[in-house]
Amino acid sequence: MQHQKRIRDYGIQIGRFETGQHNAITDVEGVRVGHVTLSEGNMQTGVTAILPHPGNLFKEKLIASSHVINGFGKTMGAIQMQELGVIETPIVLTNTLSIGTAADAVIQYTMEHNPEIGRTTGTVNPVIGECNDMLLNDVRAQYVTKEHVLQAIHKASTAIEEGSVGAGTGMLCYSLKGGIGTSSRQFQLSHGKYTLGALVLSNFGILSDLMINGRMIGQELKETLLQSWEEKDKGSIMIIIATDLPVSDRQLNRIIKRSVAGLSRTGSIITHGSGEIAIGFSTAVTIPHTKPAECLTIPVIHEEDLDTAFRAVGEAVEEAVLNSLVTAAHVKGRDGNERPAFKDLLDQFHIEL
Amino acid sequence: MQHQKRIRDYGIQIGRFETGQHNAITDVEGVRVGHVTLSEGNMQTGVTAILPHPGNLFKEKLIASSHVINGFGKTMGAIQMQELGVIETPIVLTNTLSIGTAADAVIQYTMEHNPEIGRTTGTVNPVIGECNDMLLNDVRAQYVTKEHVLQAIHKASTAIEEGSVGAGTGMLCYSLKGGIGTSSRQFQLSHGKYTLGALVLSNFGILSDLMINGRMIGQELKETLLQSWEEKDKGSIMIIIATDLPVSDRQLNRIIKRSVAGLSRTGSIITHGSGEIAIGFSTAVTIPHTKPAECLTIPVIHEEDLDTAFRAVGEAVEEAVLNSLVTAAHVKGRDGNERPAFKDLLDQFHIEL
Amino acid sequence: MQHQKRIRDYGIQIGRFETGQHNAITDVEGVRVGHVTLSEGNMQTGVTAILPHPGNLFKEKLIASSHVINGFGKTMGAIQMQELGVIETPIVLTNTLSIGTAADAVIQYTMEHNPEIGRTTGTVNPVIGECNDMLLNDVRAQYVTKEHVLQAIHKASTAIEEGSVGAGTGMLCYSLKGGIGTSSRQFQLSHGKYTLGALVLSNFGILSDLMINGRMIGQELKETLLQSWEEKDKGSIMIIIATDLPVSDRQLNRIIKRSVAGLSRTGSIITHGSGEIAIGFSTAVTIPHTKPAECLTIPVIHEEDLDTAFRAVGEAVEEAVLNSLVTAAHVKGRDGNERPAFKDLLDQFHIEL
Amino acid sequence: MQHQKRIRDYGIQIGRFETGQHNAITDVEGVRVGHVTLSEGNMQTGVTAILPHPGNLFKEKLIASSHVINGFGKTMGAIQMQELGVIETPIVLTNTLSIGTAADAVIQYTMEHNPEIGRTTGTVNPVIGECNDMLLNDVRAQYVTKEHVLQAIHKASTAIEEGSVGAGTGMLCYSLKGGIGTSSRQFQLSHGKYTLGALVLSNFGILSDLMINGRMIGQELKETLLQSWEEKDKGSIMIIIATDLPVSDRQLNRIIKRSVAGLSRTGSIITHGSGEIAIGFSTAVTIPHTKPAECLTIPVIHEEDLDTAFRAVGEAVEEAVLNSLVTAAHVKGRDGNERPAFKDLLDQFHIEL
Repeated sequence: MQHQKRIRDYGIQIGRFETGQHNAITDVEGVRVGHVTLSEGNMQTGVTAILPHPGNLFKEKLIASSHVINGFGKTMGAIQMQELGVIETPIVLTNTLSIGTAADAVIQYTMEHNPEIGRTTGTVNPVIGECNDMLLNDVRAQYVTKEHVLQAIHKASTAIEEGSVGAGTGMLCYSLKGGIGTSSRQFQLSHGKYTLGALVLSNFGILSDLMINGRMIGQELKETLLQSWEEKDKGSIMIIIATDLPVSDRQLNRIIKRSVAGLSRTGSIITHGSGEIAIGFSTAVTIPHTKPAECLTIPVIHEEDLDTAFRAVGEAVEEAVLNSLVTAAHVKGRDGNERPAFKDLLDQFHIEL
Repeated sequence: MQHQKRIRDYGIQIGRFETGQHNAITDVEGVRVGHVTLSEGNMQTGVTAILPHPGNLFKEKLIASSHVINGFGKTMGAIQMQELGVIETPIVLTNTLSIGTAADAVIQYTMEHNPEIGRTTGTVNPVIGECNDMLLNDVRAQYVTKEHVLQAIHKASTAIEEGSVGAGTGMLCYSLKGGIGTSSRQFQLSHGKYTLGALVLSNFGILSDLMINGRMIGQELKETLLQSWEEKDKGSIMIIIATDLPVSDRQLNRIIKRSVAGLSRTGSIITHGSGEIAIGFSTAVTIPHTKPAECLTIPVIHEEDLDTAFRAVGEAVEEAVLNSLVTAAHVKGRDGNERPAFKDLLDQFHIEL
Repeated sequence: MQHQKRIRDYGIQIGRFETGQHNAITDVEGVRVGHVTLSEGNMQTGVTAILPHPGNLFKEKLIASSHVINGFGKTMGAIQMQELGVIETPIVLTNTLSIGTAADAVIQYTMEHNPEIGRTTGTVNPVIGECNDMLLNDVRAQYVTKEHVLQAIHKASTAIEEGSVGAGTGMLCYSLKGGIGTSSRQFQLSHGKYTLGALVLSNFGILSDLMINGRMIGQELKETLLQSWEEKDKGSIMIIIATDLPVSDRQLNRIIKRSVAGLSRTGSIITHGSGEIAIGFSTAVTIPHTKPAECLTIPVIHEEDLDTAFRAVGEAVEEAVLNSLVTAAHVKGRDGNERPAFKDLLDQFHIEL
Repeated sequence: MQHQKRIRDYGIQIGRFETGQHNAITDVEGVRVGHVTLSEGNMQTGVTAILPHPGNLFKEKLIASSHVINGFGKTMGAIQMQELGVIETPIVLTNTLSIGTAADAVIQYTMEHNPEIGRTTGTVNPVIGECNDMLLNDVRAQYVTKEHVLQAIHKASTAIEEGSVGAGTGMLCYSLKGGIGTSSRQFQLSHGKYTLGALVLSNFGILSDLMINGRMIGQELKETLLQSWEEKDKGSIMIIIATDLPVSDRQLNRIIKRSVAGLSRTGSIITHGSGEIAIGFSTAVTIPHTKPAECLTIPVIHEEDLDTAFRAVGEAVEEAVLNSLVTAAHVKGRDGNERPAFKDLLDQFHIEL
């Protein structure tokens, strides 16, 4: 992560709050992220796995929620997450036509660690998100295998590479190369200091809409380039929010709904063809799979403390999207299709942010 | 309540669980109910107020939730209840065209007890439910005044009259006289004994659908009567659920959703024109209006404990509907319109339940 | 289908409306159903595919909707169905741990018939439903392959076998053998005669709750058997509704929500661990994948016509559940686990329905 | 409307699309707006009524939808609008504690025009939105009467005044004076030219968040003013969207959800205490109250045409918010509380937009 030039390295500061130590979703303690990148010729795709905590998540679940910004997407696991308010598997991101494979891999992974599944306890709810990388990747070839998914899970660490990696390998952002981006925010409340992190898989938008901290840089670029890839936006964005803030699933849902504020400020108009889905979890407390004799005791913030988290999530998502854009490297993929990297355009045209 | 013949007094037992002491929503400690009945000539309407706890509900809110079974209804307050997961006013039930008056009265009531509203704190979210009593009541006359609403709140006690009283004065149930009914259930979990109570304002259904504990009594009656009032069902039902079970608003929502199981077993097909809305609250913990320095600590049951509450709520709603039917007295109202009382038909035709 | 004894063959009539010609979901013209049954030793599972119309569903979509009765389930495809109001693939039902495989197969099937997917048009939204057959089936073994799913699609016809077949092979219903059941209703409106059909994959309930047309037959059986398999209900039900009624996706959603009325009247209390999900589609009009130059013109019924559909769907679901129960054959499966067939118990104890 | 300096008069152009003739919600043919302004001393409040079409809306309903951005609000009528997909009364906006009065007035207005209500047909679903104007208005005094509401309805015309008028009299926007703002967009699709208009009642935000077309003007002003009114945001925004685009209620819901993109680009972080609710309707087709013998035929656009509407609604809402801000006049109200007008600050500090 150290070697990539991120939006702050261009002198751009998004919002008011301070970032966590690494300005990454992994600043939330216990969260890890793993990528498998498949980049060769027509194969420009991959897998990104987010592990909410280091333990057995099926046995020690986390409070979680999902929110559909635009539902032209195939995210799996949302129904049960909404009903029960918990997450019990890693979140796996990949291309749209590999969701079945990814689900199968997460099922297998969870069964391995929980031999009682399908015997003395019920089944497992895999959480899979996707975007469509068909321009740069031969998505019909379904290159992703179960082994790739398991590798992404096993490679998870606190150091996150961004841009054209993992599930982001073949993705676009505002018609340029996009992919994985992350950011975090820290804030102080009367009862403690908390961290909220975002990781996005960006694959949406058209160039002329791109806005950085209020600057209509997309229109500038479009005029400079004298050309355009502005076909219809068929993209998507997956937004993963982690926090150590003690919140109920309802409060968490309120938080992740504010992702859209950050997204909008990068220029998105939330197009029809774009599956835009946010998934959030809190690491503040674990919910045991096995029913204890006593009631659970859940610490939650007072509703009025939420405004701080609302500001934090908007900022973190905005910056994560921009990080996914500025870190992404140029990719030439399926049938020679390619999209420039934003950072290369800045260099080429001597544009300063 | 002692003087009314209820469904159990006919030897009918609904479900398996034991009832609370009075088989009423007021078996949940702290809950009180008040009626104002307006019954004279064309005026056959009224108000029923449910007070969730004896204190200042605005300052000490309760976890709450609402669920729309069928949304052909004008219930107020649901949006904020769903967003914030709490209730902060009494629940007032009345006729459809008096909701504005009822809202205004609840606003006034809450302002009186909370002088800081509109000064140093925000506003208040009145919770109003309604059914349409237009057959027996001249609903256009809007007989209900703010004073009636305030009276209903002030008269609230633990003794609930059922049938053609309060908001139930002019309501119908399965084409016969309906109105207010209540019931409760008690159950033991590993961590304590709990009570769940239901109160309904019944105003739905057509005679031939009426079913009591599996018996198609509505069809029997229809054949016996040799006549029918089976016009189109334009009715509604308001279902209020109270419990002392420690639950989150999400869990409470899961509970009140099961109201429909009890409702269905009385014969309802949930018609288009019927506003069917459930509102629930838990008295287990209060949520302070004013933000404390520390996090809140919320006791909640493990999800697997919910099945017991699910069974309880279905039973209580089924029995409350039947109580509303069997206790309701004959009413002759607007333009001489009338509907027989179920209990009178049983007597008249020597039918045994 | 002709050789199976169904609930009507026992002299039980559910509701008032007449059935379609075969009393099956395939009475809705164009609908076909295919099963692949995997029944041998520890392997007691399978696949059931519902094909909404005989053409290319991706290119000519149908108006569709889904409704979550209880969300402890892993159904795929609901997010996009709700956002866009259409279905574009067959609906595949299987066991819970085979959803990834089923999704992958449906993706492959749709790609084969639509070479432009992932090239000149976007991706596809597979619709997969599931129940957990772990008692009778070694669900961890994931016996279902992509080929099984494709076979089920290809075998689809208008003749539906019921009971312990297809996805229903290893399922339970009220603690006895359950599985696939179907039923249909016909009704006349001012503008035409319409059909509505239901197909269920039943896997829920405990014996003592079973109710047939008001008779508490489950309790009778429990007393007769002097034994019980009443472990915790960890089941589910998938409910598929087809109709040729011209409805909007909102109206369709209102219709399928009423499934719960029929379900409740068989005795369900809608338990926590039960994924209960309804999916509906209308064959009245197709929605083209490719945008035409002109607006679409959608015929829809007036809202007041819905009551007839509401009654029909409750009846059809109730009867489909009972058909799944009474047609199911005894299965001995994983580790010798078994559950009796309802029909065998009737014979054994000389019980008449 | 001609005499007010609007955001475009400052040389600021929001987005890409052309506006309608008057850049107002009333550019959608048939839509009219009426204000009653109550401005004297402690009384700084009012009513704004939006009439979706000139006919009898109860008898000829319009397709409608509502969307909750943040549910800390008391909007009435949303439940039935979502269930039935239509609107049948004017939309009335007022202060939070006057919603009961407003509902009562709309009920009375609709009864007057429809004597069959409560006699031969059912009741009416009033649609009321609100924001809390407690800083400048003595909201506890409940100055708004039924007559004020009826006047606002009767005064409705196509010429809309903006700023500190009607329901906007006492409202704030980004800590400055806010209130009513409007804007519209026109766009060409293959089948016709369409108009979409927005009207907002702005009452949200803190000064330092205010952003105009990417410029952080709020922070500039805050530094210039050397003072701040940045107390906690307890505000709200009501967003009304009208269009003549032929859309289903689901499509309309997708459109109005995009309001948030425009809102975010003015700087909103969508705070906890802010009731932010969008209500939309389409004038393309009317839905008869009385059931006809035949099916209805509803023209709707293909889903892919929606992107144009999505861009339009974001732009129109963004501009409407800015119009509400720049047109608002200074108000001194309750207990001498006041907030400067944005336009006065520009003059005072010689700031050019």
